[in-house]
Formats: sequence, C-alpha cells, structure tokens
Amino acid sequence: MIAKCFETELIHKVGNLEVADYGSKAVRLRRIANLGLSVPSGFLLSKDFVSEAVNSPKFTISGIFENLEGLYALRASPTERDWGSVDTILNLGISDVYVKQLAIQIGHGPALEVYRRFINSFSVLVFGLDLEIFEELYHKESRLINPDQHGFLDENVLLSIVELSKRKFKQKVGREFPQSLEEQLDLAFVAMSKSWYRPSALILRTSKGASNDAGMGIILQKMVLGIGPTFSGSGRVSTIDHDTGEPKLKGYFFVNSQGYDQIAGSGRHYVLTEEQKIEEDQKIESLQKLHSSSFTKIQSVVEKISTGLKDSFDLEFTIDKNDFYVLDAVISKRSARASVRVAVDLVKTLALTEEQALLKVPPQNLIEFLHPQISSSFSRDLVGVGLPASPGAVSGRVVFSSHAASILNARGKSAILVRIETSPEDIAGIHDSVGVLTTRGGMTSHAAVIARGLGLPCVVGVSSLTMNIPDKTMISENGHTFKEGDLITLDGTSGEVLDGSAEMTQPEISGAFSTLMEWADRYRCISVRGNADTLQEVQLAKDFGADGIGLCRTEHMFFEPKRLLVMREMILAEEEEKRREALSKLLPMQRSDFIRIFQIMKGRPVTIRLLDPPLHEFLPNSEDEIRMIANALGEPLSKIIERSKNLEEFNPMLGKRGVRLGITLPEIYEMQVQAIFEAAHFVNQEGLYHIVPEIMIPLVSTKKELEFISQRIRKISESRSYQLVPGNDYKLGAVLETPRAALRAHELSSLCDFLSFGTNDLTQMTYGLSRDDAGRFMREYIEKNIFHTDPFHSLDSEGVGELILLAVERARSLGKSIELGLCGEHGGDPNSIKFCVAADFNYVSCSPFRIPIARLAAAQASVIQKLQISD
Amino acid sequence: MIAKCFETELIHKVGNLEVADYGSKAVRLRRIANLGLSVPSGFLLSKDFVSEAVNSPKFTISGIFENLEGLYALRASPTERDWGSVDTILNLGISDVYVKQLAIQIGHGPALEVYRRFINSFSVLVFGLDLEIFEELYHKESRLINPDQHGFLDENVLLSIVELSKRKFKQKVGREFPQSLEEQLDLAFVAMSKSWYRPSALILRTSKGASNDAGMGIILQKMVLGIGPTFSGSGRVSTIDHDTGEPKLKGYFFVNSQGYDQIAGSGRHYVLTEEQKIEEDQKIESLQKLHSSSFTKIQSVVEKISTGLKDSFDLEFTIDKNDFYVLDAVISKRSARASVRVAVDLVKTLALTEEQALLKVPPQNLIEFLHPQISSSFSRDLVGVGLPASPGAVSGRVVFSSHAASILNARGKSAILVRIETSPEDIAGIHDSVGVLTTRGGMTSHAAVIARGLGLPCVVGVSSLTMNIPDKTMISENGHTFKEGDLITLDGTSGEVLDGSAEMTQPEISGAFSTLMEWADRYRCISVRGNADTLQEVQLAKDFGADGIGLCRTEHMFFEPKRLLVMREMILAEEEEKRREALSKLLPMQRSDFIRIFQIMKGRPVTIRLLDPPLHEFLPNSEDEIRMIANALGEPLSKIIERSKNLEEFNPMLGKRGVRLGITLPEIYEMQVQAIFEAAHFVNQEGLYHIVPEIMIPLVSTKKELEFISQRIRKISESRSYQLVPGNDYKLGAVLETPRAALRAHELSSLCDFLSFGTNDLTQMTYGLSRDDAGRFMREYIEKNIFHTDPFHSLDSEGVGELILLAVERARSLGKSIELGLCGEHGGDPNSIKFCVAADFNYVSCSPFRIPIARLAAAQASVIQKLQISD
Repeated sequence: MIAKCFETELIHKVGNLEVADYGSKAVRLRRIANLGLSVPSGFLLSKDFVSEAVNSPKFTISGIFENLEGLYALRASPTERDWGSVDTILNLGISDVYVKQLAIQIGHGPALEVYRRFINSFSVLVFGLDLEIFEELYHKESRLINPDQHGFLDENVLLSIVELSKRKFKQKVGREFPQSLEEQLDLAFVAMSKSWYRPSALILRTSKGASNDAGMGIILQKMVLGIGPTFSGSGRVSTIDHDTGEPKLKGYFFVNSQGYDQIAGSGRHYVLTEEQKIEEDQKIESLQKLHSSSFTKIQSVVEKISTGLKDSFDLEFTIDKNDFYVLDAVISKRSARASVRVAVDLVKTLALTEEQALLKVPPQNLIEFLHPQISSSFSRDLVGVGLPASPGAVSGRVVFSSHAASILNARGKSAILVRIETSPEDIAGIHDSVGVLTTRGGMTSHAAVIARGLGLPCVVGVSSLTMNIPDKTMISENGHTFKEGDLITLDGTSGEVLDGSAEMTQPEISGAFSTLMEWADRYRCISVRGNADTLQEVQLAKDFGADGIGLCRTEHMFFEPKRLLVMREMILAEEEEKRREALSKLLPMQRSDFIRIFQIMKGRPVTIRLLDPPLHEFLPNSEDEIRMIANALGEPLSKIIERSKNLEEFNPMLGKRGVRLGITLPEIYEMQVQAIFEAAHFVNQEGLYHIVPEIMIPLVSTKKELEFISQRIRKISESRSYQLVPGNDYKLGAVLETPRAALRAHELSSLCDFLSFGTNDLTQMTYGLSRDDAGRFMREYIEKNIFHTDPFHSLDSEGVGELILLAVERARSLGKSIELGLCGEHGGDPNSIKFCVAADFNYVSCSPFRIPIARLAAAQASVIQKLQISD
Repeated sequence: MIAKCFETELIHKVGNLEVADYGSKAVRLRRIANLGLSVPSGFLLSKDFVSEAVNSPKFTISGIFENLEGLYALRASPTERDWGSVDTILNLGISDVYVKQLAIQIGHGPALEVYRRFINSFSVLVFGLDLEIFEELYHKESRLINPDQHGFLDENVLLSIVELSKRKFKQKVGREFPQSLEEQLDLAFVAMSKSWYRPSALILRTSKGASNDAGMGIILQKMVLGIGPTFSGSGRVSTIDHDTGEPKLKGYFFVNSQGYDQIAGSGRHYVLTEEQKIEEDQKIESLQKLHSSSFTKIQSVVEKISTGLKDSFDLEFTIDKNDFYVLDAVISKRSARASVRVAVDLVKTLALTEEQALLKVPPQNLIEFLHPQISSSFSRDLVGVGLPASPGAVSGRVVFSSHAASILNARGKSAILVRIETSPEDIAGIHDSVGVLTTRGGMTSHAAVIARGLGLPCVVGVSSLTMNIPDKTMISENGHTFKEGDLITLDGTSGEVLDGSAEMTQPEISGAFSTLMEWADRYRCISVRGNADTLQEVQLAKDFGADGIGLCRTEHMFFEPKRLLVMREMILAEEEEKRREALSKLLPMQRSDFIRIFQIMKGRPVTIRLLDPPLHEFLPNSEDEIRMIANALGEPLSKIIERSKNLEEFNPMLGKRGVRLGITLPEIYEMQVQAIFEAAHFVNQEGLYHIVPEIMIPLVSTKKELEFISQRIRKISESRSYQLVPGNDYKLGAVLETPRAALRAHELSSLCDFLSFGTNDLTQMTYGLSRDDAGRFMREYIEKNIFHTDPFHSLDSEGVGELILLAVERARSLGKSIELGLCGEHGGDPNSIKFCVAADFNYVSCSPFRIPIARLAAAQASVIQKLQISD
C-alpha cells in the first residue's frame, strides 16, 4: 500500500527534476548524466518518499527495489548542499560471501580492506558505535606488520581483523553483523533518514536558512570501486582559483581510493597539472605528466560540464579500471571577489549572457569591494589582533553600549561598538555603529554574522583586550586604557585593532566589479537611491552609483554642536516669536547644506524629508547644557527643566513627531521648505544643473494632514520672488509609514507627486513592535520559529508586504502617474528589493554601502522577472 | 445666468425636501403645511442657492423674486436647529409709504411701533449699528409720555421717534434709510448669508458638531402680523413637561406680538390652561378660560401635528385677526429622562411602534439613569458647591494629576481627578477616574463635556475650593486641607462636594427606562457584553444587562497589595524556578476570582484575556518597596534595582507585552490557564451553570504565536484529571489589535473559536498614534479639522474600520463559524456599534456604565438596518 505512493526516479532517465522534490545532489547527477557523461547508475528517492518511509514502521527499502546486486552507496540529497550533515554510506552489500567475489576482481588485500572499513563505518553510522574501539583493534593487530608494495596488509592479518571487528560488533550490538545487502540497506536507509531529523542536524541546517520542515532526498547508487589491479582511484578537480576566481585547473588524484577514503596505506596520489605542481611547490608528480590519457579525459569531461553548467565547478570523479565516472560536479564555492570575476569571465568566454552572469553573484558578495583599507604606508599602532570577521577598515570612537552608539550616531559621530560579546539586544547599536569589536567570539558569533550582513568592518575574539564594564574602560596588554569616546581603528580584513584613527585608501571600484555593476545598471528596471544625511554620506552614495538621494533626514543636520544649541533654543522657546527667531538662525545652515547636496548630486533627484523625530530627542540631559539654554533664552533654569520634562513621551514612536510637528508648529517646516527652495534656486541660478527638489512629509496618516502642509508649502513657493509650479519646480510626497496611510494611499496620492514607503516604521506599526524593544525577545522568537526571520531585516511579505501592495494598487487607482519608492532599511535587502521590483516601484533607497548590493539585487530581480514573463 | 442654477421651493408645494438641501426649518414648515395647517406662504432657498448667491457679487435676491408685495420675514434654516446663530429679520418692506397703508389695517400707533422697531433691528442686524443709540433716543423721547390703553405711545411722538431714528441711521451709515422692499430685502439677504460665515458663528456650530463647510438655507416668508384691532398675537405651546416627559399642554400667548417681540407696551398675555395657572401659581389668566375658541383651535392643531410628527413638540403660532398660523413646530427639547418617558408613552398611545420609539431616544441620554445617588438619609459634610455638570454621585480619592489617576486606577482604587480646569492632556486621566472636580469652568467646559460623554459624575466651577498646585493640596473655605489620596464624594446631580465617602443608593432601573431596555433587547441583533476586571465591575455589568463579559483583564487582579508583592517577586526573579514559585502563590488567588466571576455571570460567556501589559508596569518606584522585594527574594537591593531598570522600554506600547510574554515566559500563561480551567471545573462540579470559559490571547501578530500558545493550553487541558475538548469545553480566541493580525485574520481564525477587535490598540497602531501622547495635540488637530473627531472615542471607519472589515471578511472566508466581537472603548460608542452591527459582529463589549447605552444603540442600529433592507 505505502509503496505505491512513493516516487523514485532513475538517475539516467532523461528529464528534469525539481530540487524541491529530490534535493540538489539528485538534480546535479541527472544533469551530468544528461550531458552524456558516465554517472554510476541508481535511484533517486524523493523527499516525500523518504519522510513517508521513515514514518511507516513496516516499510523496508529492500522491499521496493528487487534484484539489487553488487555494492551500493546511499547518499543524502538535501535542498541546499550545505544543509546536509548526514554521512554517505558506501559499499553496502559486502559480506563474508561477497568479499570473496570481490577479491577475484581486485585482489584479496583490497577486498578485505574494503570489508574492514565497511564494518567500521556501518557500525558507527548505523548503530552509533564508537569508532575508537575498531581503531584500537586495528592498531593492536597491525602494529608489527609491514604492508606490501601497494600499501595493503597481509590478507590473513586483514581477515583476522575483519573477524575480530565482527565479533566486537556482536559484543556491542548483541547480534551478528548483517550479511545480506537487503538487511544492510534497510538498516542504513532508516539510520540515514532518522539522522536527518535529529535535533543537532535540525539546528545546524536551520541556522543556515533551512525551514523547520525541510526534507532530504536520498540517492541509492551503484558503487564504482576505484580500486583495482589496473589504474583506479578517485579525484577532485576545481576549475578556478577559489580566492581570486581566476580560471585554473587544479586538483588531486588518489590511487585506489573511494572519494576521500583512500583504502591503500601507501597514499599514492598526484597533483593535476605541471603548473599546479610548480605553483604549489609540490613534491608529488602530476597526472598530466604521468597519466596523460587520464588527464586528457579529465580535460574533456571538464569542458563538457562547463558547457552544461555554465559556471565554474568542483568535480569529483572515480576512475575504475580505466572507466571514468563522475560522482558529482558542484558549482564551486568561491570568495566574494572570485564570484564576481568568474561571472564576468564566463561572459567573456561566451558561456553566459550578461543577464545570466548577473544571476551568478550573490549581491551580499559585493560588500568586500566597498570598504576602505588602511593605507599600506600608514604606520600601525597595534593594540590587539583578533579574527577578521567582516572586511574593511574603519576609524571611530569607542562606545561600550548600544545606547551610547545610538547617541553618538545621532550626533553625527562614528561609533565603534566594543562588547565582550554582542547579543540581539545590540542590533540597534550595531546599526548605529561604523564597526564592531568583541573580545570574545568566533567567525560565526553574533557580532560577526550581523556585521557581515550589514557590511560593517568587524573584528572578534580580541582576547588581548580586557573589558572593564563597571569603569567603562578597555585595557590593552601593554596597559593602554581606552575610555568611551577614544578613537580606534578596526581592520576587519586583517583582524587588527589600532590606536587612534588611520589613513585610509578608498576601495578600488574597477575591473570585474565595475563591469558587473555596468551590466546591473543596464538590466535593472528600478532606480537605486541612497539614504544619506550628511555631505559625506551623500558623496559616498554618489560614488557608489546612487541614482539619487531617496531619503535625506534633515534632523541629522541639527546635531552639530553649534546648531544643536540653536535647535534647543527653538524647542524650548515658549512663544512662536522666539521659535521663529531661533529658526531664522538655522535657515542659512540648512540652506548651505542643501546647496552642497544638490551640487554633489548634479541634478539627480534629492528627496528631503522634513523634520521627523519628537523634539525631546534633541534635548540635553546634563544640567550644564540645560543652563546654557536657559541663559540663551533668558529664562530661569527651573522653567526650562519643567518645559523639557513636559516634552517627554510615553511612546515616542507613536508620539508628537513627523507631520504632527509640522501641523502644530508650522514655523519649523516653513523654515525647512524655505531653505530647500532657496538652495534649489541658488543652484539653478548657477545654471549647471536643473534642480527639482523633492519634499517628503513623514508620518502622515490622513489626507487632511497632507492638505494642510501642501497648502503652506504652496504658499511659500508663491510668496518668493521666484514663482514655483508644484509638481514641476518641486515635488511633494509623503512617507507611507503608518498602516492608515497605506490604507488611504489613494487619497494621499491625489495630493502627491511621489510616495515612499518607510518600511522601518511601517513594520513597527503593523506588528505593533518597537524595533528598540524587540531586541529583548527577537532571538527567542526566531529560535522558537515564531518569526522565520527578523522582519526589520527582510520585509515581511505577508503582513507589511500585503499592506504595501494594497497601497500601491490604491495609489495607482487614480490613473495619475505617481512615483513609488521604498526608503526603509529593507531598501538594501535583496529579497525586499525583489518585492519592490515585482510591485513595479520606481526606486528603492538604502544606506550608501548597500547601494552596489541593491543595484545588483535589482538587476537580478528584473532579469528573473523578464525570464518569468517570457516563460 | 447665475439665477438659473438656483433652486427655490414654495413652502406649500406638496412634496418632500431634504434637510441636507434646505435645512431643518424648511423641512418642518413643508411638513406642517402638508398636514393641512396654515403656514405663512413664502419661498424656501436651498443652501446651495445661498452659498452661491453670497459668492456672486452681482447677484440680488430681489432680482429673483418679482412682484413681491407687503411685508416679509427672512428666516435661517440650518441643518440642525441649534447650529444657527443668525437672527430672523421681520417686517421687511415697511417704509414711510407702507407704514401708512399698514396704519389703515392695524392703526397708526401699532403701525408706527412696527416701523420703529424695524428701523432698530434692521440697523443692528444689517448694518451692525449699536442698539443702544436707538434705545437712548426712544427713552429720551418717550420718558414723559404715557401710553394709551393698548400700551401704544401717542402717534406723533412715535412718528418723531421714527424720524429721529432714520436720521440717526443716516448719520451713522452715511445714507438714507432704505425705503423699498427690494433694497431692504437685498441688504438683509446679504447680511444674513454673511452672518452665517462669520468666524464666531463657525466656531459655535462646529463646537456643536457641524462640519466646517456646513451651509444654511433661508426662508423668505410672508409676514402674518399678529397685531390688529381684533384678537391677535403670538404664542408657544409645548406638549410635555420638558423635565419629566409627562404629557402636558403648557404655554403662553402674547397679545399683539410677533414671536417674542410683543410690540405693545402693555404686555398683556395668558397662560395656556387653567391647570397650568394653578400648577405654576400664576397671577395671569388662561387662554382656556378667556379665549376658549382660540384654545380649542390650539388643541386641534396640536392634535394634528402630534399625529403627523409622532413626537412631542413645541409649537409657535400667530393668531392674526382670528386666523391661526403655525410658525414652527419643533420636536421638543427634553431632559434625558423625559426623552425615555415620551418614547415609551408614544408607543402606549399607539403613535409609534416599539421600533420607532427606540429610535427616538439618543443612547447618550440613558446615562442619567445609571448612576448611584447619595442616600437621602446620609448627613452631608459639605465642603463646596459648584455646577452639576454630569449626573450621579461617587466617592473616591483625590488626585491632582492624570498621571496620579492612572496609577491609582492601575492599583484598583477609585480616583477623583481634581484640577483647576482640565484640558485634552487630561483625557487619559479622566478615563482612569471615577469622577471629575474642577474649581473653574462652566457647564460646557472641557471637564463637563468629557465627563458627560463618559458618564462620569462631574462638578465644575467650585470656586470655594482653592487649589495649591506646588503643595498638591486643595483647601476649602472652612480651612480643611485635602491631600492626594484623601477621600471625597461628588454629587454630580446637585453639584455638591462632600468630605469623605458617602452612603449611596443604587440607581433605580425600572419604569419607562426598563421598558425601553426590554424593547432594545428584543430588537437588537448583537450581544452586548461588559469589560469588567473586578468582581464589583462584573456585578455591575450583570446588573446593567450584560449578555456576558467580553473582556476580563486578568492583570487588574494583581494590583491588590498582597498580590502585587508576589507579582513583583515573580517579575524580578531571575530563574524560572523562582518565577514558578511566585506564580504558584498567585494561582489560588486568580482561581477564586474566576470562580466568583463565573458564579456572578451564571453561565453567560466570560472572556478572559491573559496577561497583557509589559511587566515593568507592575514595578514600584519607591526604594522601600524595592527593598521589600529584595528581601522577599533574598537578593541584594542593587541587583533588584538593576533588573527592574532592565525591564524599562522605549515604547512600552510596542514592547514585550501580550502574547510576547506568553511565549518568552510561558509559565505565566500556564498559571493563568490552569486557574481558569480549575475555576470552571469547580463551578461546573457545583452543577448550577455550565461554564465554557473563553481564553483570549492579546497582541497577536502571527499565526505561529497563536499556535505556540494554543498547543500549550491544549496540553494543560489534557494533563488535568478532567479532559477538556477544545472549542467545546473551552474556547480560544485572539485580540485583533495589531494591523498585521487584522491582515492575517484568516490564518488566526483557523486556530480560534472567536476573535475580538481590540480597537484601542488597533487605532493606536493604525494611526501610529499613542493615546497617552496624543493628548498634546488632539485639540489642535480637531480645531484645525485634521481629525473630524477623536478616533479613540469614535471608530475611524475609513482607516481602522476598513482594516476591521478586511479582517472580518478574511476571518469568515474559511467557511467555519467564528465569533466576532469588539472590546475597545468604542464598544460603548453608538456610531461604532452601528459599524459593528453592519459588519454582522456577534457582540460588542464596553464598560459597565455604557452597557445600557450600547444595548439601545445596538437596537437602533439593528432597526435602521432592517428598515434599510426593507426599503
């Protein structure tokens, strides 16, 4: 009954398989076989087959496959190659009887050695015995015996070791070692299937992105021995240098071996080519020289597979009595740089089209190209060395808490977060830092993983630095003490930590990288803009190829000390008149910033968001600072303290901010709009570029709010000597970041030239989840599989995404052309970009360092969309 | 050109008019005319007519109506009667020439008196002159003259006053007093129209709920003089006692008068009936006795109108030379109690059906029936008297800030908010109080309006009490000082403030009120449940007719001092074991609460919400209290302080609360669920009622959260000796209060027996607006017409409402029967209830005092829905 619903496939049956059904290895083998190459024959068992089988107590695999004979291997085939942690079981079918048959083919020594090893591995993998008991036994029996010229022990010794091993098995397991292929197969199949579902395997693969219910296909494959009297063995070849991506045939061949399991003691092996021998300064000979026919065979196989796979790959093969079998050909693991080089090279060799090449590079890989490095001429004042967890070099000020990082960042300063180890509570702080340093932890520690994801330089495990938490200091081995605010430099490429700031060389954006970026720009159907507040960030965004600035947060311009004081005067003033006085001092500062931004961007669109955060975020905590403001305003200290206390909020995220400030204190937005118009006018007068500034209103939730603001803006545009035409000389837009704004997008779009989804806040409000507070339980939520992934990193397509799609449909329902963008942190996340491309957005906007990633991700999404449409 | 698009209607043309087009007065007059009664003829000018006319500089009203002759009145006809602040202008057309013609009809004295008064009122209303200048003139000229037997001055004196008045006019205005009907009419029409749009009128009517663009119709109506040689005059009659609603004909008649403007100096007037004369102890005679034919006429007119209007009303009429004219018949203003009595009586007299009667009573009116009163036998220790701003009596503890009110409320204590005046910032505090006392302010002050809306007893303007804000004290005239926490009693019905708490008599829910409630329950198609946390509230909800408890917030049970300490131990414990220890102490307390609640509700549904607020809300501020906990836990003070600091959140509303606590600290929900099951089991064992407890999970945003919790609950239900069947022996539901939960309602409903919309939080998150912080700008938002109304009071149907409808559709898309409810504060708001009825909810749940209101509002919504369907 059960058997009927199982599905199996023969490897050699021509046709396509789905990775989702059979796993990636099965699909690769079928594809290689379809290229006309020899693959050991066998059956592909689907994931459903395996999971049903493992849950059916009466099921036996041997009951499905009749007439099996000879030796077999069982191999795992999970969806992603690196999700697997299930070992292959080779040589199923060997027994007291069969070993004699095998001896006729390959000799007694090798046959017994295969049997011995099978007993060991079967006992370990299927019955969970300890390998050491067999190794002890082997060493004891073999220690006085010399192997023969091929590296094999005397067959009598081997026979006795085999017998002793079987006896050991019986002693431990309480039964005879299984002697039939059927029984071995049934036991191995069950063990292998169950092994997939054990907790440690589950944790491992989910940590690599597998879903909780990910299954595994299995391959039942005929053995090719790789052992014999004539030239036999197995080898691996790679077609590129994994670090640089340079095309280069390299590899090894082991005589009389089955994969990594070289059964002869002699260890005779070869490098692949003469060039490799020289380059790697190897003592051993090359296959090219000593077995040139085999080498030629390898060359022709590589060529065939290259044509088929259209990518560089690692080949595993077996030569069995002069027959050549491909065991696997896996797209080669490669460094980020190599992946770019390979993709570009494959186009040059015409193996790939540009579009195909674009799909070959994971966007995340580009991070390596984007960071500055410490100048080679700079003399390094080393204070510690740790693991180079995330590449690039950066200088900044030491902070010991996420909170301090956020404060420093808010003040426009670069923070380097220094912790013993980081935890999810530090996410916000990591976001607000330019680099991360931990004194503990390894390459897969929390800090390392997150920093790589964000493209932040990171050094971990610097054990020579000692943290003193209560004192808020860090002490180096030579006794140097660092306090919060001290400058240090991290080299995330070398793992070095330096005292002070360092001279940097900017990243070289050329070669394969710039070629790939050119292609990306050619194929993508969505603009990529930068989120940039300071002139430095704007310049960086421009250098990284931004099509414009999608989010310029004006408040970040107020944190420079001189401006901050004026800003505070404004906030704490009681009457409108005094507020206007302070604002009039801020006006020229903002105007000059905007002029510089427009000049840097040379006419590309610049979207300026008017003041957003609640005013209390600008207020000081120290009494000295408060006194300064009291003096500036000529008011008693107590009054200022009281007024600043009055501004505190229960839920600042949901408080008096964004457009609510614009409506209740209209003079602030008036000043900002005036500065924008004057700056644009100034640059337009220069005549080099034509500036059409884009003004963006935050936290809108009703049409009336936007009406109120847009009327005021229009009034300002008309009251100046230059008469501006709305929609033509300037554009007006809203950030859609409240669910209500999304629901009323049709109303808002009637008043707007563009709408930009602020997905950070939209996610917070849709989930009812503060990003600052979510750290407390985000890890637990992901561990318990409540959240598949952090919705602040990758857009929640089901909830937030649906709201966005609803808004898009409504915004466009008016038939008027409206520009749509996304300006949350998701703008730099490939999955989220894919979402935006599918929704036909006009642009995404992300932090400068993620712009190249976004350009590539956008190109990939566009290419895939095109492919799907033409399907 | 313009004239063509104007629309005018004759009063006597039979047909229906829309209030929205012509205003309510126009519609009333048409309706009265349609009953066959005499109404002075004239034209009805629509609102559009008026607003277009007033914006067309060349337009003249006299250009529209040709062949006018005699005297006319211009009367305003706004949509709602009390939106008007535009005076009627009578006797248009009188002039030097016409006054002579008039004299022939009514005599020289009366005619000249009419003319004199017209000059005065026209000058004031149309030209804005000061009435005093005319009054001075009159008094100067008339002071030595005795009027004739009918109360009129000598005609020569009158003539000279008229001439002097005209001269005065010319002197002030710079032109002759207009002498043609056309000119008077044009000037009056423009003045009247503009008067509608002046700022003070706008503010007044918007404060009464008019929209910003509300318009006004105008009625141009032939004068009936009410003055003459034969019996003439005008009067008003009401058909009920406005206070009690008792059917009773009462009124006055003024001889030779035009409405309130009795032109004869004698002031001859009558009461309506003999009964009235006796009852009111009047010296004047009754119409019934002295002019019985007129009285009979009035009786027959009243009867006709009663039949037509099917309600009690106030009649205005004029008798002109024995002809009877109806000037208006307005549904009588009445007290809340009267409205109920009238509605019930109208059914008894068969004038109305029960359904119609239900529609007659504004649900808000029921508040008066619901509050306790101070026992008449109780000796009152009076400390002050103010205005009785909102009925009912209540005792509670003095607090001087909203914050203190919230704290006290959170601790389960009754707070009486005492302020000089309240402002929108106090809304949250008012919500958290049982009564409000202000030392300033009148019946329409902020405190008074809000308290009436909420049904809270309120006394305002108690000027004999002095607030001392810095000391946080309140001092009475006799020197008694009240501190925060002191007990006082408010009598919102009498305006008295008493020292200490008082003996109360509970409201009598009987008579017309209970009849109306019976009908409401008969006709409503939606259940009304109560939000009740304490046993007292549950009992109150039951007494007020709740069909069940829709929201029992378990956390409110933890605020009793003994429990609070254990709760804090639990929160601040570091290990699960210690938490469980503390929880095991809380278990029996919760269980006994639940048992009592189940017993009070006698088998009606009780929905229990598991712990929702973030844990830091339970923590103390004072070091003494913290020390107590440190002792209880046997840990150093510093550690406890640090731990409690760690629990603070940036945005508690969006923090670790609700189901997030349930997932990260599962032992809390486990305890609560166990207490619920044990309590239900206990009561079920008693055998009196069958309890199926409803367990509700707060702040859900994903299906996985609910899965996690529901599995744990199921486990508990199975692990007990009693085996509970989910959906049968207990019900599971979620509060839909995040936008994401609404969007994923189909997923959630697959796991639920019921879903309840938590519209407070849903509104906060949909708007991105914290209710606690919104007070700072809510008033400005409403004044600036950004919000039409506070979305926390009345459901925002466009944004939040749409999300709800989306969720309803999705929740029901599975085809499984799922119960839907609403448990936010909107559950007691008639508009929001209408929304829920339209969406076919199963229940709304509101605070106990609003239950009768909700029952009536629900009945009204159901009746209206039925009417619309049958239309």
